[in-house]
Amino acid sequence: MAKSANKNKALPIYVLNGPTLNLLGTREPEIYGTTTLADIEKMVVARAKTLGLSVVFRQSNHEGELVDWIQEARTKGCGVILNGAAYTHTSVAIHDALKALGKPIIEVHLSNPHARERFRHRSYVSLVATGVIVGLKAQGYLAAVDAMADLVKGQS
Amino acid sequence: MAKSANKNKALPIYVLNGPTLNLLGTREPEIYGTTTLADIEKMVVARAKTLGLSVVFRQSNHEGELVDWIQEARTKGCGVILNGAAYTHTSVAIHDALKALGKPIIEVHLSNPHARERFRHRSYVSLVATGVIVGLKAQGYLAAVDAMADLVKGQS
Amino acid sequence: MAKSANKNKALPIYVLNGPTLNLLGTREPEIYGTTTLADIEKMVVARAKTLGLSVVFRQSNHEGELVDWIQEARTKGCGVILNGAAYTHTSVAIHDALKALGKPIIEVHLSNPHARERFRHRSYVSLVATGVIVGLKAQGYLAAVDAMADLVKGQS
Amino acid sequence: MAKSANKNKALPIYVLNGPTLNLLGTREPEIYGTTTLADIEKMVVARAKTLGLSVVFRQSNHEGELVDWIQEARTKGCGVILNGAAYTHTSVAIHDALKALGKPIIEVHLSNPHARERFRHRSYVSLVATGVIVGLKAQGYLAAVDAMADLVKGQS
Amino acid sequence: MAKSANKNKALPIYVLNGPTLNLLGTREPEIYGTTTLADIEKMVVARAKTLGLSVVFRQSNHEGELVDWIQEARTKGCGVILNGAAYTHTSVAIHDALKALGKPIIEVHLSNPHARERFRHRSYVSLVATGVIVGLKAQGYLAAVDAMADLVKGQS
Amino acid sequence: MAKSANKNKALPIYVLNGPTLNLLGTREPEIYGTTTLADIEKMVVARAKTLGLSVVFRQSNHEGELVDWIQEARTKGCGVILNGAAYTHTSVAIHDALKALGKPIIEVHLSNPHARERFRHRSYVSLVATGVIVGLKAQGYLAAVDAMADLVKGQS
Amino acid sequence: MAKSANKNKALPIYVLNGPTLNLLGTREPEIYGTTTLADIEKMVVARAKTLGLSVVFRQSNHEGELVDWIQEARTKGCGVILNGAAYTHTSVAIHDALKALGKPIIEVHLSNPHARERFRHRSYVSLVATGVIVGLKAQGYLAAVDAMADLVKGQS
Amino acid sequence: MAKSANKNKALPIYVLNGPTLNLLGTREPEIYGTTTLADIEKMVVARAKTLGLSVVFRQSNHEGELVDWIQEARTKGCGVILNGAAYTHTSVAIHDALKALGKPIIEVHLSNPHARERFRHRSYVSLVATGVIVGLKAQGYLAAVDAMADLVKGQS
Amino acid sequence: MAKSANKNKALPIYVLNGPTLNLLGTREPEIYGTTTLADIEKMVVARAKTLGLSVVFRQSNHEGELVDWIQEARTKGCGVILNGAAYTHTSVAIHDALKALGKPIIEVHLSNPHARERFRHRSYVSLVATGVIVGLKAQGYLAAVDAMADLVKGQS
Amino acid sequence: MAKSANKNKALPIYVLNGPTLNLLGTREPEIYGTTTLADIEKMVVARAKTLGLSVVFRQSNHEGELVDWIQEARTKGCGVILNGAAYTHTSVAIHDALKALGKPIIEVHLSNPHARERFRHRSYVSLVATGVIVGLKAQGYLAAVDAMADLVKGQS
Amino acid sequence: MAKSANKNKALPIYVLNGPTLNLLGTREPEIYGTTTLADIEKMVVARAKTLGLSVVFRQSNHEGELVDWIQEARTKGCGVILNGAAYTHTSVAIHDALKALGKPIIEVHLSNPHARERFRHRSYVSLVATGVIVGLKAQGYLAAVDAMADLVKGQS
Amino acid sequence: MAKSANKNKALPIYVLNGPTLNLLGTREPEIYGTTTLADIEKMVVARAKTLGLSVVFRQSNHEGELVDWIQEARTKGCGVILNGAAYTHTSVAIHDALKALGKPIIEVHLSNPHARERFRHRSYVSLVATGVIVGLKAQGYLAAVDAMADLVKGQS
Repeated sequence: MAKSANKNKALPIYVLNGPTLNLLGTREPEIYGTTTLADIEKMVVARAKTLGLSVVFRQSNHEGELVDWIQEARTKGCGVILNGAAYTHTSVAIHDALKALGKPIIEVHLSNPHARERFRHRSYVSLVATGVIVGLKAQGYLAAVDAMADLVKGQS
Repeated sequence: MAKSANKNKALPIYVLNGPTLNLLGTREPEIYGTTTLADIEKMVVARAKTLGLSVVFRQSNHEGELVDWIQEARTKGCGVILNGAAYTHTSVAIHDALKALGKPIIEVHLSNPHARERFRHRSYVSLVATGVIVGLKAQGYLAAVDAMADLVKGQS
Repeated sequence: MAKSANKNKALPIYVLNGPTLNLLGTREPEIYGTTTLADIEKMVVARAKTLGLSVVFRQSNHEGELVDWIQEARTKGCGVILNGAAYTHTSVAIHDALKALGKPIIEVHLSNPHARERFRHRSYVSLVATGVIVGLKAQGYLAAVDAMADLVKGQS
Repeated sequence: MAKSANKNKALPIYVLNGPTLNLLGTREPEIYGTTTLADIEKMVVARAKTLGLSVVFRQSNHEGELVDWIQEARTKGCGVILNGAAYTHTSVAIHDALKALGKPIIEVHLSNPHARERFRHRSYVSLVATGVIVGLKAQGYLAAVDAMADLVKGQS
Repeated sequence: MAKSANKNKALPIYVLNGPTLNLLGTREPEIYGTTTLADIEKMVVARAKTLGLSVVFRQSNHEGELVDWIQEARTKGCGVILNGAAYTHTSVAIHDALKALGKPIIEVHLSNPHARERFRHRSYVSLVATGVIVGLKAQGYLAAVDAMADLVKGQS
Repeated sequence: MAKSANKNKALPIYVLNGPTLNLLGTREPEIYGTTTLADIEKMVVARAKTLGLSVVFRQSNHEGELVDWIQEARTKGCGVILNGAAYTHTSVAIHDALKALGKPIIEVHLSNPHARERFRHRSYVSLVATGVIVGLKAQGYLAAVDAMADLVKGQS
Repeated sequence: MAKSANKNKALPIYVLNGPTLNLLGTREPEIYGTTTLADIEKMVVARAKTLGLSVVFRQSNHEGELVDWIQEARTKGCGVILNGAAYTHTSVAIHDALKALGKPIIEVHLSNPHARERFRHRSYVSLVATGVIVGLKAQGYLAAVDAMADLVKGQS
Repeated sequence: MAKSANKNKALPIYVLNGPTLNLLGTREPEIYGTTTLADIEKMVVARAKTLGLSVVFRQSNHEGELVDWIQEARTKGCGVILNGAAYTHTSVAIHDALKALGKPIIEVHLSNPHARERFRHRSYVSLVATGVIVGLKAQGYLAAVDAMADLVKGQS
Repeated sequence: MAKSANKNKALPIYVLNGPTLNLLGTREPEIYGTTTLADIEKMVVARAKTLGLSVVFRQSNHEGELVDWIQEARTKGCGVILNGAAYTHTSVAIHDALKALGKPIIEVHLSNPHARERFRHRSYVSLVATGVIVGLKAQGYLAAVDAMADLVKGQS
Repeated sequence: MAKSANKNKALPIYVLNGPTLNLLGTREPEIYGTTTLADIEKMVVARAKTLGLSVVFRQSNHEGELVDWIQEARTKGCGVILNGAAYTHTSVAIHDALKALGKPIIEVHLSNPHARERFRHRSYVSLVATGVIVGLKAQGYLAAVDAMADLVKGQS
Repeated sequence: MAKSANKNKALPIYVLNGPTLNLLGTREPEIYGTTTLADIEKMVVARAKTLGLSVVFRQSNHEGELVDWIQEARTKGCGVILNGAAYTHTSVAIHDALKALGKPIIEVHLSNPHARERFRHRSYVSLVATGVIVGLKAQGYLAAVDAMADLVKGQS
Repeated sequence: MAKSANKNKALPIYVLNGPTLNLLGTREPEIYGTTTLADIEKMVVARAKTLGLSVVFRQSNHEGELVDWIQEARTKGCGVILNGAAYTHTSVAIHDALKALGKPIIEVHLSNPHARERFRHRSYVSLVATGVIVGLKAQGYLAAVDAMADLVKGQS
């Protein structure tokens, strides 16, 4: 099984970001801070590199595009770190795509949804995620990369 | 009215498939079996042919694209067979598009959603469908084609 | 296993009909049409014959009698097609009898319960049915016979 | 239409009583009083007679039997007075049979269900009844006969 | 106790009518018919007279006025027949006033609230009424007078 | 029908205001601003005049009085603009009076109730209103007058 | 009162079994085990005998028949041990019959309904039972006989 | 600010009582005791006097009148002690009037609503009250006066 | 701040329309009328012009595209008038995009959603809209333009 | 009975305080003020003394310890004043202990739980308390002592 | 496996009792009878002895202590008979401790919780118990000992 | 502020573990793995050391003890990492203690509660936690230490 493990390690982590995360750093900074998504991408790529992993980092406002990318990660990625943003709370389509992934999934949110409106308390992602990290701002992405590295190693 | 009936018959059935159905045959085969969506397309086209009908067969992970196609079927199709997959349970947009269709609608699911998670028990499609066929796997598509042929005949 | 398969094929399909279906063709024709239950029985028997299958076709207003018949089908039938009518929405007893059947189950409804009152949206039958076909009127019974033939074949 | 009116008047009122009403006068007399069901039958027949009407008066503990009798009343009765007792709160089958009746329906209860347990607050009979009379004990049956006479007259 | 009974009999029945019943005969006649409230008053007074009873008949759009009148009936009436109309579904104040009445209460509605919107299914009046009569149109008031006569007699 | 249309135009718009709106300009100015109800009356009368309409402008803390006025508008007004304030969320009586109006109804709120407490999300007025305008402060009354002018014209 | 106590002791325990329990030992043995209902009857009769009691042991798939038998037990039995099976969760009729029994009632279930589907968590029988014993398989019937013997003794 | 404090102290406490409290001492004495509202007024006035405060003490069955009085207290009172009785549980209008008061509010109930029917558990008054005192019978009014004196002092 | 106000005024209003609104005038005309979306665009542009404002008018069936456009309006528009159609009831993504807008938002619906199915009663748009205008058909868009002009002016 | 009354008076009031009240004066002072629990104890002891009563004053973070102390108060106290803090909303154990107390119970909260999070609206203590005093800060304890003195006197 | 069975038999049954059961015989005797917990201990020990089993019998008002004891029973007991009293309805901690036990569990209640308040209908213990015995008073403990003896034997 | 920051850094992280976590490694290893709590303590202490932080690591089955320790951390710790286990879902007391902490809080769970029973979906801890990390097994504790180090640094 060493071979498929090697192959797995060679594949990048897919770090996928949902709607309105492209505005990060400008939108409601009192909740989300001033770090931009580009800043986070840099931090994530750097941390992954120290762990011998590469990263595919993307953002979309389209539910269907997120589904497409999760499907792409089935054959081209070693796992998915997903900040589904608003779709977290409404998308059964993303839930189903994740369920078909067959790879580790880490759900990330910059803020703590449990401390916000009631409709943010339900997560279709959490139901199928391996792990969930919320409220740690940009730092949460790095913790997710660390966890993913650990989970990918665990597979080999 | 014979004329518009003839015209109606000449129009193809739109068979539309929702998110993650493109993975059919590989995703959770213990629930959905190993038949691929391409296999189903062949079966559906063949069955429709024996009933003197043609088929437009499509799949998308995008809710909006499914809405576009349902709207297209208003003038270019004789009816819609829809396996909305995950969007079945969350999409009022698809519900509204179907409501505006003015043609027969058959809802199909490969598995039986009533025997799965609670959030799969609500169907916005069922509220406006002429008929619903679930749990019969690929065979359900063929039953839907038979029923659609019958309904289209009924219109002429 | 060829032997028990042969034996299974030789057994009739049980087509069981719940309360007030005996009034079919007279009761609320705007919802259920003018076809009588006797008409449906003839159509069903004919279709089954073309598929090499026989049919036991019955109707009762009594929940307990429907339970008795489902139990009878355990040893004397190859599967059950059930239009439970009103008991669909209230009978755990029928649910339990079906669960103990160990044969394919197709649930049928002439109209689409999802488009009617809220208390018709819950089905104790759907929870254990192999497949569900609703809204196709008498045609739905024939689709159920086709599906059952397929499922029985699948068992052998 | 005078003819069918005459025919209608000639038909008896069906007064149907649900489970455990046969114990009336002995069961929980602090709620239901000491009058027996036979006493009520006598009062009802007498009152109907003064209004030129005859009565079919029956009791059953079986839901299916009540459904059978309501169906019988479609052709042999001029209307139904129903004390569905416990089935009032659980029977969609009786609801459906009443819906198919096409004659006036008066729902009667000896006590006031709204002043008792919560599960007695829902009535599937009230949803389709012409009128509802509760809490007036045996007197409620007589009020129902009066109302039925009025409604039958209204039909002619 | 004969004396207080005599006194009780001498007191009129309070027949109290809630908001918008003053429009009876003009408002939504397909639900409420064309009989006016004045017509009903005449019928009620006439029927009560044949039973040796007098009537105080009033209507108000004001919840507080209905409460005032129910309180008045405590000392000046023998019982209350109440068609609370809209306040039936929202007024705990009327509920409390009725609870303090210490006399028989008959709730009346012209139509059957159970066959209308969901928010008309809850009745704060039914929780404390001796009897409830709905769906019998103007006739329901007469049945209520009969029942009240019976209950008042029962008190003596 | 030109005559009744003429008559209709001649009738004033009833602009009715519910409880505590008399305190406008002093109560919770951070939500409702400093404009008083007298200010709004002046603006409304002026705008209606430019559209050839007159206005009856009133305020009451009494649910019953609002019901009385809505009934008055049936014969003396051409339509009702209603800011029901707190009664919006609790009054079936006002709902019923509006339902019997037979004229256009515009519901207005100064603030946006959907952005406030949960018990302000249900509106018995919205269920029967022709149109609803919320969140536009005093400006919303003017928009309502415009819309009413349009609707009244549409009737002629 | 010694006489009626003697008389009570002389009367048998009614052990009544609901729908599908006749299939015991064959139906879903992983939940219910392989013991048949006839096996349980023998065990129950034997245990009762050691306690000086006789037993009437019956099974029915018909709700109405169970109601009939509970009514029979009012005069011919000393108490009822009831495994209502599916009717436990839906039958107000059985609830009412038990309420009118005036004798001890022990509810028994072979499995633990609380560890199964949500709709098995509500028991109309538990609301009126003296005691409830679940999850102890056939052994539960014996515990129920012991408890009934104790309760019957307590009555004398 | 000493001046406005002096002015505030000079203003009376408004003690307002809701529907049916005028029957106190006669209505359901097992819940509310035999003390009349006049008795309570005397006690309240006396206690306030010892604290250097005067009292306006009123009762109404009309929701609108209570709203009027609360508005009056904005300029003429130093605070409101409110026993809203039935309106406590249904009146958003009173809630809004209290919210606009800008003075201390003490809610009082003679009995403990939490130990009564479920619909008495919700209080629109509690949501805006400074303090709530229930279950202490007439004594609760005196505790409210003490608390109000304290709060008014706190304002100066 | 006059400068940024000037700049603001120079920016167009974004008028965004959700799924199936492209079918306006053909789809369910009994609810939505025969005016097409192109007709509305003309009316809107004309009205805005009279107020010194320009308009960007778009329609999409894609939730993600609507999110993109709302984001575009952050820098290129002076405010958003949104008829979200079906997405109104399901889209947290649009809710979040609007929350990040930092400009006035007017929600518009042609019909009154409160008078339709229950799932149309919840609006994620209303939770963040400045104002909401429903039920006024095409006229509602013009009222929204008026209101927006007023709000934009208010900003300068 | 004078003797047991004397004995009762001799017993101290138990004033019991739940979790995190030991932090009073430091924790969230904007809600709870700066008075410490020791300050309150002094005030309470002083007030009780003026009424001829002694006090046992305790605090615990442990639910079980509060149960132990309530049980102790059955024989060693004349009544319990309980600020259950967080356990108010979750503890059936404290509810049961209070139910077994057989002495007066006054529930106290410094703030008004009805004006805070939804999970603080349910109180298991209120269901069994004689009286409830909330929102009056430290002053509420004194009101509770007054009330308890009154209730204890009432017992003698 | 005979050896570990022997070892298992040698271990005592843990009979654990929750809050306020120490007051048994004095607290609400109309519900729980006059038998004390010490009486029950004696009966339980005696019965176990006749079955060759010893008993550890304890009571605590502390949830955490009950958790400790259940953990102790993992290695030192052969099974747990638990009357969790109030914690039954609220303790996930006890639920988790029982889930980790790996030994038979019998839940016992003296009274029938289903016939009491709604918040006593949910049992976190029932979800993991092997068997549940309620309503049989002290006798229920003996039935539990019998059942436990049977289950322990079944393990060997 | 450098001084208090220095002081803060010198204080240890409190890592607190709730009920049944002491059984880790033996209890349900298919969910929680075979690592023991002692193993985790070692890993946590080591990781903290590399970050220049010390650790207080404790476990308790007692809700009150966890509350005590959280209070202790107010003055003696720099932050709390809490795996509340079962109390997570039921303890308002722990919620209140955390709310009074005034230091960073990281909630940790070994498994993903969202993928388990419904009653594990509610977390009173998440409502007040700075961050939440679930599903990453022992690794989650290390991620929490990293995050805490970051947060503590952020404070200085």
